[in-house]
Amino acid sequence: MITLYDLDGRDGHRFSPFCWRTKMALKHKGILFEEVAVGFTQKDRIAFSGQTLVPIIVDHDNGQRRVNDSWAIAEYLETQYPANPLFGDAGGRALARFVQSWVDTSVHMGIFRIVLHDLHEHAQPADRPYFRQSRESRLGGATLEAFQADAREAKTLAAFRSSLEPMRRHMKGQPFIAGAAPSYADHILFGAFQWARCSSPFPVILKDDPVYAWRERMLDLFDGFARKAKGYDY
Amino acid sequence: MITLYDLDGRDGHRFSPFCWRTKMALKHKGILFEEVAVGFTQKDRIAFSGQTLVPIIVDHDNGQRRVNDSWAIAEYLETQYPANPLFGDAGGRALARFVQSWVDTSVHMGIFRIVLHDLHEHAQPADRPYFRQSRESRLGGATLEAFQADAREAKTLAAFRSSLEPMRRHMKGQPFIAGAAPSYADHILFGAFQWARCSSPFPVILKDDPVYAWRERMLDLFDGFARKAKGYDY
Repeated sequence: MITLYDLDGRDGHRFSPFCWRTKMALKHKGILFEEVAVGFTQKDRIAFSGQTLVPIIVDHDNGQRRVNDSWAIAEYLETQYPANPLFGDAGGRALARFVQSWVDTSVHMGIFRIVLHDLHEHAQPADRPYFRQSRESRLGGATLEAFQADAREAKTLAAFRSSLEPMRRHMKGQPFIAGAAPSYADHILFGAFQWARCSSPFPVILKDDPVYAWRERMLDLFDGFARKAKGYDY
Repeated sequence: MITLYDLDGRDGHRFSPFCWRTKMALKHKGILFEEVAVGFTQKDRIAFSGQTLVPIIVDHDNGQRRVNDSWAIAEYLETQYPANPLFGDAGGRALARFVQSWVDTSVHMGIFRIVLHDLHEHAQPADRPYFRQSRESRLGGATLEAFQADAREAKTLAAFRSSLEPMRRHMKGQPFIAGAAPSYADHILFGAFQWARCSSPFPVILKDDPVYAWRERMLDLFDGFARKAKGYDY
């Protein structure tokens, strides 16, 4: 049994993309886990981890071992629970790291812009002033509302969808990033789409996109685990 | 012994990014090869291949087997000559394909714009009218000169350099894309930089960029094979 500290939103919305990577990895491994939901500003509840970010896992079957950072968690799970591999082989691990570099630097920025104000609306009410202040300061003073509206203009939206072109191309002839079966590389990219899906009704991808078909396959995994999460269907 | 049909430019400049993928793969495998240089418009010289694009290889040690398309050539070499693996394992092959999807859709467009008129100047004089007509028609009528000048504006250049962010991030803590040693994924991205280096004095990357340091490592491979190619040092 593992305890996962996940980011808490209002009314059961759980949208953290990094926590989604870990949730999918745990389901992939078939490991039982319970979730502890922690709001943006409830840092005291994860002070035990010596840092301030989720996801964090505590492994009760391995001396209450604590691991934070989604990549470190994936590596820990792969080493400690080798069945149902997340990476497969050394090349698969490098593939996941490359996909992570691409998602973190390219895909996340696009999605963040498109759902920014909706994220605010789906945070716990007590967390919203912190969310607004920290994000608006990061954006050089633009309001969440203005920033999100701008990202939904046809031109900006087209730029985001075009940033998915590597994945679109890669999906030709194979259902998942590493080939026939899902791997941690898929969970990394999928986390970005769950970030949007669990916080915003705005369709960041459209039905005629090959990336949409891949997302459907991901939503179907583990008996529709991610599809059942509180969010918006599109 | 293999014969490689490579794209011919003026005065020994050989800039085709797809042919560079194959040249690096052949050196990686330690396979002896001779080059036959073919200009853009000398399609009759490769008519034997049943299509119009280089690279093409003819393998004299395997019944004059002909293979075209850089990816198909890499797979052929990996199967026929398993020593010095290009992919390493199944995950490594998926990594190379993902990197190829990223390079083909994101990196190539940026580099193409920046060196477009220089490419024209480094084509064989007889090929230049074809090059200009086909590329300008693809660009909706803009001249090569105007298009290249626009791509070298600070803002467009910054957008190109920012498109390399996944690679920059990925290079943290490892010298090559798959880890400690070069693999076909590196050769794919490197081909894009050789396209620029062998056709244009314009520095598409700068010395303080981690991608520059990786390119230096690639230029050093195989006794400086790619560094010796006719081009521009920056």
